[in-house]
Amino acid sequence: MQQYFVNGKAEKLVTITDKDTVKHMFQVMRLTDGDEVVLVFEDGVKHLAKVSDSAAHQFELVEELADNVEMPVQVTIASGFPKGDKLDLVTQKATELGASAIWAFPADWSVVKWDGKKLAKKEEKLAKIALGAAEQSKRNRVPNVTLFEKKADFVAQLSAFDKIFIAYEETAKAGELSALARELKTVKEGDKLLFIFGPEGGISPKEIEAFEQAGGIKVGLGPRIMRTETAPLYALSAVSYALEMAQ
Amino acid sequence: MQQYFVNGKAEKLVTITDKDTVKHMFQVMRLTDGDEVVLVFEDGVKHLAKVSDSAAHQFELVEELADNVEMPVQVTIASGFPKGDKLDLVTQKATELGASAIWAFPADWSVVKWDGKKLAKKEEKLAKIALGAAEQSKRNRVPNVTLFEKKADFVAQLSAFDKIFIAYEETAKAGELSALARELKTVKEGDKLLFIFGPEGGISPKEIEAFEQAGGIKVGLGPRIMRTETAPLYALSAVSYALEMAQ
Repeated sequence: MQQYFVNGKAEKLVTITDKDTVKHMFQVMRLTDGDEVVLVFEDGVKHLAKVSDSAAHQFELVEELADNVEMPVQVTIASGFPKGDKLDLVTQKATELGASAIWAFPADWSVVKWDGKKLAKKEEKLAKIALGAAEQSKRNRVPNVTLFEKKADFVAQLSAFDKIFIAYEETAKAGELSALARELKTVKEGDKLLFIFGPEGGISPKEIEAFEQAGGIKVGLGPRIMRTETAPLYALSAVSYALEMAQ
Repeated sequence: MQQYFVNGKAEKLVTITDKDTVKHMFQVMRLTDGDEVVLVFEDGVKHLAKVSDSAAHQFELVEELADNVEMPVQVTIASGFPKGDKLDLVTQKATELGASAIWAFPADWSVVKWDGKKLAKKEEKLAKIALGAAEQSKRNRVPNVTLFEKKADFVAQLSAFDKIFIAYEETAKAGELSALARELKTVKEGDKLLFIFGPEGGISPKEIEAFEQAGGIKVGLGPRIMRTETAPLYALSAVSYALEMAQ
């Protein structure tokens, strides 16, 4: 069944005001009175809802659904700005794979230079991708998308996390394969995890130092070299496997 | 260091004959006498090699490298033909994530109909993508790419595998999250694993039955619904995490 995210709280009668949502509901899907969809409110709770007045874009909530597909921990992915449209893929796939937030920052070795205007436009596009992917993968939450204009603003956020993992290729090469598995054994439900990924050129030694000073731990992600946009997908799958399937 | 796959066996002097490889070496990378690269032969062993005669495209092997990044098991990914160019992404990412082979077959609910000519062209393109990705991720092996024209030919291969996993959304929905983890605990080094994925519409009940008769086990891949091209990436990451990192 089609799922939509709706701003605000669940009430008996809900009027949809977001233009894109209205368009998708009543033009693309051609919903009419009596049709059912799932509406997800800001608290992440899903509700079965029935169109009560299609002209007024109004729904009546039928019942609350217990369905919760969120990870037991909150995983934020932070990538050094990669080239081109790679963040589009990362955003879509990371949303399907359960990310809580998708961030990016200007890394020392980022080739692209995005100014404030470009960043705002890109962030808006990525937020739409995250919304669409969250609806399709039946998430209870839409991941937050944030593109930091200054690295310092990103680094200032690090203290909010319970664990910070620095994806570090050299670590993998040196055979240090189990650090992530060891750390994941110690996480508790609700913990906030951050994975930091470099751009194509990797994370600079200065950045590694800064992230380590903030409590970051270097971890390998298997023995193979992955492209910058692939590593976050591995990390999210590994966390899901470790915490949702292997326990 | 740049890595190339070379047909044949390792000998003291190696002459490169593959046109694309020669072009990349001597036109794109502009290798000259004395430059070093890594050559990987059909046995999967990497060798440090030095250009001994650039005009003759000849290398001298310097030393064998112990480096092996292959998974301890062989994982084949088989997708019901998905729409558009999705197999391009699956092939590139599955190669980075360690797949041993990337297969696709005409599933009951595949929307696209690809005939023999189209399939041959597509297979050739995908083989090139796999080769490029295998070089970039420093694999010891290039994954085999096979697009089956008839589903029966795919099904005839199933008996060659030690474990067959059927990625089944409904299983995930029903909370059967741990079947994969349970099964992965029983695999042995060198085992051949097959993961079967449906196209966008999923795997038909008739197909499920056929795959189960061939020994297939339905497994969920976490509680979230993933697109058809994302599920193989999750499966490969999960196998890597379980067998390369968490042990």
